[in-house]
Amino acid sequence: MNPGDARRRFLRRAAAIAGGAVSASAGENVGFREAAAQDLERNLPPHVPEWSRRLGAPILASPYGVPSKFEANVRRRESPGLTRTPQSSVAFTPLQNLFGIITPSGLHFERHHAGVPDVDPEQHRLMIHGLVRNPRIYTLDDIVRFPSVSRVHFIECGANSGMEWANVAVPTVQYSHGMIGCSEWTGVPLSTLLDEAGVDPRGKFILAEGADGASLTRTLPMAMALDDVLVVYGQNGEMLRPEQGYPLRLLVPGVQGVSSVKWLRRLKVGDEPWNTREEALHYVDLMPDGRHRQYTWIQEAKSVVTSPSGGQVILDRGYHEIRGLAWSGRGRVKRVDVSTDGGRNWKTATLQTPILPKALTRFRLDWSWDGGPALLQSRVIDETGYVQPTIRQLREVRGTRSIYHNNAIQTWRVDPSGEVSNVQVL
Amino acid sequence: MNPGDARRRFLRRAAAIAGGAVSASAGENVGFREAAAQDLERNLPPHVPEWSRRLGAPILASPYGVPSKFEANVRRRESPGLTRTPQSSVAFTPLQNLFGIITPSGLHFERHHAGVPDVDPEQHRLMIHGLVRNPRIYTLDDIVRFPSVSRVHFIECGANSGMEWANVAVPTVQYSHGMIGCSEWTGVPLSTLLDEAGVDPRGKFILAEGADGASLTRTLPMAMALDDVLVVYGQNGEMLRPEQGYPLRLLVPGVQGVSSVKWLRRLKVGDEPWNTREEALHYVDLMPDGRHRQYTWIQEAKSVVTSPSGGQVILDRGYHEIRGLAWSGRGRVKRVDVSTDGGRNWKTATLQTPILPKALTRFRLDWSWDGGPALLQSRVIDETGYVQPTIRQLREVRGTRSIYHNNAIQTWRVDPSGEVSNVQVL
Repeated sequence: MNPGDARRRFLRRAAAIAGGAVSASAGENVGFREAAAQDLERNLPPHVPEWSRRLGAPILASPYGVPSKFEANVRRRESPGLTRTPQSSVAFTPLQNLFGIITPSGLHFERHHAGVPDVDPEQHRLMIHGLVRNPRIYTLDDIVRFPSVSRVHFIECGANSGMEWANVAVPTVQYSHGMIGCSEWTGVPLSTLLDEAGVDPRGKFILAEGADGASLTRTLPMAMALDDVLVVYGQNGEMLRPEQGYPLRLLVPGVQGVSSVKWLRRLKVGDEPWNTREEALHYVDLMPDGRHRQYTWIQEAKSVVTSPSGGQVILDRGYHEIRGLAWSGRGRVKRVDVSTDGGRNWKTATLQTPILPKALTRFRLDWSWDGGPALLQSRVIDETGYVQPTIRQLREVRGTRSIYHNNAIQTWRVDPSGEVSNVQVL
Repeated sequence: MNPGDARRRFLRRAAAIAGGAVSASAGENVGFREAAAQDLERNLPPHVPEWSRRLGAPILASPYGVPSKFEANVRRRESPGLTRTPQSSVAFTPLQNLFGIITPSGLHFERHHAGVPDVDPEQHRLMIHGLVRNPRIYTLDDIVRFPSVSRVHFIECGANSGMEWANVAVPTVQYSHGMIGCSEWTGVPLSTLLDEAGVDPRGKFILAEGADGASLTRTLPMAMALDDVLVVYGQNGEMLRPEQGYPLRLLVPGVQGVSSVKWLRRLKVGDEPWNTREEALHYVDLMPDGRHRQYTWIQEAKSVVTSPSGGQVILDRGYHEIRGLAWSGRGRVKRVDVSTDGGRNWKTATLQTPILPKALTRFRLDWSWDGGPALLQSRVIDETGYVQPTIRQLREVRGTRSIYHNNAIQTWRVDPSGEVSNVQVL
C-alpha cells in the first residue's frame, strides 16, 4: 500500500475512534453522537469548558515562565545504576517527550564531576596563558564584547549509550540516548582569542580547565581549536544555565561532551597533550587486544527512533509517524533509513530542514502498524559517507569492554500488545 | 580606518584595561600586575576561586533547570502605561539581554485578553466544523499523532512599537520592540486537518477560536490557511508554555500575533470574514483620512539594534559590536544596513546563518565608538525587495493616529557620556 494512502486511511479511522465524531451536517448544528451526560464531557465541544468561563491567570504570573503543571513528568532523570555521588553523576534528557531539534535548556542533560559551582559572573575570569606572546585575563564583559557568532550544535557525552556495550537494555530512550542535547550557542570563536594572545609556533595543544571543584581539564589540538571551537556564554538565546557552565563554556562542536569544558576559567597553550586524569583514566576506549584508545575526539554519526521507543505503548493499529533524531560529529546528516523489521528492509525517512552541521536533525517516516511484532531501527549516513554501524559490527572492531563511543543502531521491539521495549539484536 | 584594524586595536586596549594584564612571560609563571591584596581578587587567577575549592550543587538540584540567580534581572516586564487589567495586558521580551535568534520560552512576550486559562490537556478538544464534509473533534493525542513538521518562526504582536506613533519614546528596546519572540514550533499543517475535514467549495475563510475567557476569535483566509499555517503543540522542543497557548495554538507565520490563536479549541470554515470584536474594534489601522484598514495581516520587514540600545551605557571608547534583529513577514531577510549617524551613511551588516523565512535573523556590525554623539539605526531589506521605512515615510502614508503595524526604523542616541536613549528622529 502506498504510505500516503495508508496514512490517510488510518488517520481517518484514528480520528473517528479517538476523537469522537460529530454529526456530518455542515454548519453550526453539530452535536455529539455519544450523549454529553458524562462528567468528562462537560468540558468538551460544543459545551463551553470551565476554563473558558472565567478569567485566567494574570500577566506575569511568572516573570520567567515555566511549563504547565500537567507536564511535570517531562524532566531530567538519573539512572540509579549510574549514580556514584550526588556531585558526580548524570541526569538524562527525556528525548521521548521532545520535538524538533532544540533541547529546552531546562531539560538539557547534566554530567558533573564535582557538582555545579555557584560562579559569580562579576568575579569570574578567563585566563589565557602558556606558549603565547600576550597572556590575558578576561572578564565576562570582555568576552561578551568580542565579535560574536551563534551556531546550533549538539553536545553528546562520550558515554552516551554506554550501558548497551554490556547488554544492559535500559528501558527508555531517555536512558539509552539521553546524554545529548542541541542548542543555539552564542560566543566568541576561540581562534579570535588565540589571535589576540599570539600563539607561539611551538604551541600545538591547548589545555582547557573548568572552575568546578574537579578543576576538570581536557586537551585540545590546535588545529581543532582554530577550526570551529567557541567560547560560549549564550545558550538558546539567554545566558548559559548553571548546569551548562555558567557563565563561560568551551564548545567543541562534534566532539565528546567532556571536551566542552564548563565554567571555563583557563586556557593554556602547550607543545604536547597533558594526559590529564579525565584523559588517562576515563574517556578512553578499551579495545579487544587489551590496549586502549586515548583522545578519541569525534562523535561518529548516530541516530535513534524516539517515538515509538522503549517504555511507550502503541494504543491502536494504523497510522503512526516514526520520529527520531540523527546527528554526526563530522558534519551534516545526509540520509536516515528506517526499518520496522529489524534491518531486513529499509525506507528513507524525511529530514526536517534546515539540516545543520554537527547539529541534531529530526527525521520522520509514515508507518502503519498492523498489530504484529515489529523491530524499529534507524540508520544514519552522514555527508562523509559514513554509515552508522550495527552493534554487531561495532563489537567486531571494539569488543565488549568499552564504555564510550557506542554509536550503534538501536532496536526497539514492538509487541502485539503495543508495548515497546529495548532489545539487543545480535 | 579599516574596521578590522579598529576592532583589533580596540580589543587589545579593552582587554588590557578591563581584564587586567598578566605578565608577558610565557608559561606557568604568571602573576597580576596589580597586587592581589584586594578581597575581590581572591577569586581571580592565578588564585583558586572559592567555588573551585568545594563540591558544587548536586545533580538534579533542578529536575527542570532554571537560570542562574545572577540573571534575575533578565525577565519579562509590563509597561505600566499599557496595563489595563492583570488579565488583559502585555509583558515584554528583554531583547537587550538575548543572543542569537531563539527566544527562551520563559522570556517569550505575553499578550492576553482574559488571562491564561488552566487547560487540562486530557480534556481539551479541537473542533473543526462549518462548511466541511467531515466535521471532527480531536483530542490532543489525535493531533500529536498526525504527520508533523518543525519550523522556526517569529510571532510579533501587531501593536509592537505602537507607542512610537505618538512620539512616546519608551526607554528600552524591551518596551519598544519586545512584543516579539522566535521559536522552533512543532505541529501539524492546518492543510492536513482541512484535508481530513473536506472543505466545501464555498469555504473561503476560517474562524479560529481560543479556549480562554475571552473566547478570542480571528478570521483567516483559506489561501493563507492552506499555505504554511500550523496547529502547534511544541515550542522549542517541549510542549507549549501555558502563556503561549498550551496545549494547542494556531501558528500563522508572518502575520500579526493575534491571529496565532492560543488555547485553540475551534476552527470553523465559512464563506465570509466574521468581523469579530478583535477584528472590528481592535487590530485595525486608523488612516489619516479617518477610515480604517481592517484585516492587515502581514508584519512587514522590520529591524532593530538591540545593543547598544536604550537604557544601556557604553563604558568606554573603542570597539563595540553593534547587534540586532531583523525579520520579515513575507519571507527571508536579504540585507541589513546599519548607520551610526542617523541615516546619512550606511554599512552592510553581517547576517547570522541560517537565514530562515519569517524568522528572526541576527545581524552584527563592527563599530569603533570615538566618544562623540552617535545615532544608531538599522534598516532591513527583505527578499521581496521591500525596504524598512523611516518613521517620517511611514507617517506620510499612515498618519499619526495608528497603534498597529509600526515597522519604522528605530533610532538610539549615544551621548558622549556613553548613555544610550530612545529618540524620535523626524
